[in-house]
Amino acid sequence: MSLTDSAPVDVARSASLASRHLATLSNSARNDALTALHQALDRNRDAILAANARDLEAATRAANDGSLNHSVLKRLDLSRPGKYDDMLQGILNVRDLEDPVGKVTLRTLLDEGLTLERVSCPIGVLLIIFEARPEVIANIAALAIKSGNAAILKGGKESMESFVAIANVVSEAIAGSQVPVSSVQLVKTRDVVSSLLAQDSFIDLVIPRGSNELVRFVKENTKIPVLGHADGLCSAYIHSDAKIDTAVKVVVDSKTDYPAACNALETLLVNEEVLESVFPAVAEALLNKGVSLRCDSASKAVLSKTLTAGQLAQVQSATEADYDTEFLDLVLAVKTISATGSPESAVEAAVAHINTHSSKHTDIILTESRELANLFMNSIDSAGVFWNASSRFADGMRFGFGTEVGISTNKIHSRGPVGLEGLTIYKYLIRGNGHGAGDYHDGAGGRQYLHKSLPLSD
Amino acid sequence: MSLTDSAPVDVARSASLASRHLATLSNSARNDALTALHQALDRNRDAILAANARDLEAATRAANDGSLNHSVLKRLDLSRPGKYDDMLQGILNVRDLEDPVGKVTLRTLLDEGLTLERVSCPIGVLLIIFEARPEVIANIAALAIKSGNAAILKGGKESMESFVAIANVVSEAIAGSQVPVSSVQLVKTRDVVSSLLAQDSFIDLVIPRGSNELVRFVKENTKIPVLGHADGLCSAYIHSDAKIDTAVKVVVDSKTDYPAACNALETLLVNEEVLESVFPAVAEALLNKGVSLRCDSASKAVLSKTLTAGQLAQVQSATEADYDTEFLDLVLAVKTISATGSPESAVEAAVAHINTHSSKHTDIILTESRELANLFMNSIDSAGVFWNASSRFADGMRFGFGTEVGISTNKIHSRGPVGLEGLTIYKYLIRGNGHGAGDYHDGAGGRQYLHKSLPLSD
Repeated sequence: MSLTDSAPVDVARSASLASRHLATLSNSARNDALTALHQALDRNRDAILAANARDLEAATRAANDGSLNHSVLKRLDLSRPGKYDDMLQGILNVRDLEDPVGKVTLRTLLDEGLTLERVSCPIGVLLIIFEARPEVIANIAALAIKSGNAAILKGGKESMESFVAIANVVSEAIAGSQVPVSSVQLVKTRDVVSSLLAQDSFIDLVIPRGSNELVRFVKENTKIPVLGHADGLCSAYIHSDAKIDTAVKVVVDSKTDYPAACNALETLLVNEEVLESVFPAVAEALLNKGVSLRCDSASKAVLSKTLTAGQLAQVQSATEADYDTEFLDLVLAVKTISATGSPESAVEAAVAHINTHSSKHTDIILTESRELANLFMNSIDSAGVFWNASSRFADGMRFGFGTEVGISTNKIHSRGPVGLEGLTIYKYLIRGNGHGAGDYHDGAGGRQYLHKSLPLSD
Repeated sequence: MSLTDSAPVDVARSASLASRHLATLSNSARNDALTALHQALDRNRDAILAANARDLEAATRAANDGSLNHSVLKRLDLSRPGKYDDMLQGILNVRDLEDPVGKVTLRTLLDEGLTLERVSCPIGVLLIIFEARPEVIANIAALAIKSGNAAILKGGKESMESFVAIANVVSEAIAGSQVPVSSVQLVKTRDVVSSLLAQDSFIDLVIPRGSNELVRFVKENTKIPVLGHADGLCSAYIHSDAKIDTAVKVVVDSKTDYPAACNALETLLVNEEVLESVFPAVAEALLNKGVSLRCDSASKAVLSKTLTAGQLAQVQSATEADYDTEFLDLVLAVKTISATGSPESAVEAAVAHINTHSSKHTDIILTESRELANLFMNSIDSAGVFWNASSRFADGMRFGFGTEVGISTNKIHSRGPVGLEGLTIYKYLIRGNGHGAGDYHDGAGGRQYLHKSLPLSD
């Protein structure tokens, strides 16, 4: 790892060269570098937290001035209980995961002595652009090294002191390993994001970690593939057979566990048959947690009958825009789904709303019917579709991936929480002994392909 | 399938709606549509070939005028022996492949009653832009339907008559199946490519099939992910221990089997130790097939001693630009690799040349050493890396994929020959019974994740 103020093109070129060597290292050589990374970060905790405290002090001043959003402070703060330890543990979790490189996923006997193999390999060079969270450096460095990819990291100015401290500490750790120093480069030069995004001949994938604005800026300004998500507009649909307890539990957890997260709930769809039975209990539980509801007329009318005047202060009328809004706050849009017709048609109406308004992140159905849950799961075009479970489970740690690069709402390559597998691609290897393709034809003397599937392990 | 002159935004929107229904169809419903597609194309062979003959006649005139490249004629001609039958057989091959949708590729028990599954699903809407080859319509329609994706096809003006004939024939076939008519739309309006490329809210993947210029134009002009390759600059390295017969066979087949193909050989690297032993035999075999050689000074000097004056007329001095040129013709660039140092360092020198100059398509090593072959295969950053086998094997049919969408030199999603799998992505499904993420923590009363890997089949 090196902290650099080189020109973006030189950073990208040296990362590309480093990536070629890194791709040939064994799993144990890559793991040794992660062990060294973990030890160095553990040993230098005090110095890094001191640097982070300086960032936090500056950011607090900026927040009090009104020049910085207060929500940044929490993301910036490495000293929050458990945060530093989680970061350290994340490195070991990644180290101890199965090697994502060199996995054979297809093996075919094309002809006698001619075999085809598909083998996983690193993508090459990753560019990670992040804002406030300094622990991203450790997460990404660990995932990049484990998956054999070189990484270029560009942090936001709010985390600069933490960034420099971490880079200096880890630089030495990596230098003592077989991983090339240029495999992880931290760019501290300011205003170089656009120049980095132009290095499409050296950089293979961009991963923006930060605000919707950052992600949108990156997507609009590069020809390099971008992995990530701008919005997290998650919805839940309460079907007419939903159990009250299940609905209350899942909706409240989805909305209130961490409202600023991309996997928090933003829209609640309620089958009209349960507007008077299930919905009031869900609404009251949400109100008790401080959630404001933006209701359509049918759902608001029901609450007007069941809630106290004090409670009703938290209930407003929804506008159409509310169903396209990622509130990232204790606000929830509520819409009624018509129950006219079959149960399937109600599910289809919920699906139509979600496929049109959601951001293809994570959506939920609450029902006791396996058939309707399957219909919903097949029809919703989102990275995650959950049945009777909170949208907050959409997370790489919770999925058991060790840690995550981010959550992707892309429709290709990698979708949902992206762990190590999302940082690999594959190549096709053929082993022959002088085979030419011209010998395979239907005419006289022509050979035919065997196309026989072989076991994946030798 | 429908032939349309609707506005691009309407085409894209209706494809997106159709894709949602298509994604929920069973494999047998999709297969039935393919059977109907095959029968209709078989039944209407004469009418389609007559339309194709009209395209060919117009194109022949244009080629004779000099306003069209002669190489287009061959690609346009559906009446070449075996071509129509291959197209028909391709549809049945795709139909009979394993269903790519609904495959469970990960199943984890997160906690009691809480399971995570990763299941393959269609990507959504594909836009295929092609030039002369009318059989692409059948290939792509088959692959799209089998993989549950909607497809928008835009052909070149050279194949317009064939295009309209095929569209009309197949339209009826699909209309009688459960596959929505808007799942496959053939856009005949001219000059709409740019407008289609702007429909990134409805179209998920663009696949250009045609000239390098077409692919580059598409890549430069859309925010939609593009799957394909502009260049196919394939290289072969003859190591010092290569067998003469193997080298001759593989190099000649790679270069001459179909020189206009993207998987044809363009650069030959020769270890200097075999310049006087293996190389002259390879060169002579190439010259006998009409190949011109663009040699560096060392390889040219050797040939000057061994070839006749007549043969030497086919040997020119290479310029640096020749090592970056996809000739697509009977021309091959030749470069000598220094043998100073270890065998590994010679392989590394070949690797360095290839990783810098090749287009990451397919590259070959000719050696008798398994260790050196593995070093080469690990180090070359290309979609295909072949040992003692022709680059011409880089092809979906030859790989056993039934047919192919194209060959990708992308570093993400799908690489090399792309078959059905490349047209799918996955979603994560969670099934619970009222689980909330807030219950999982280290504190008192907190639950812990099990993260237990489950068998992939129920």
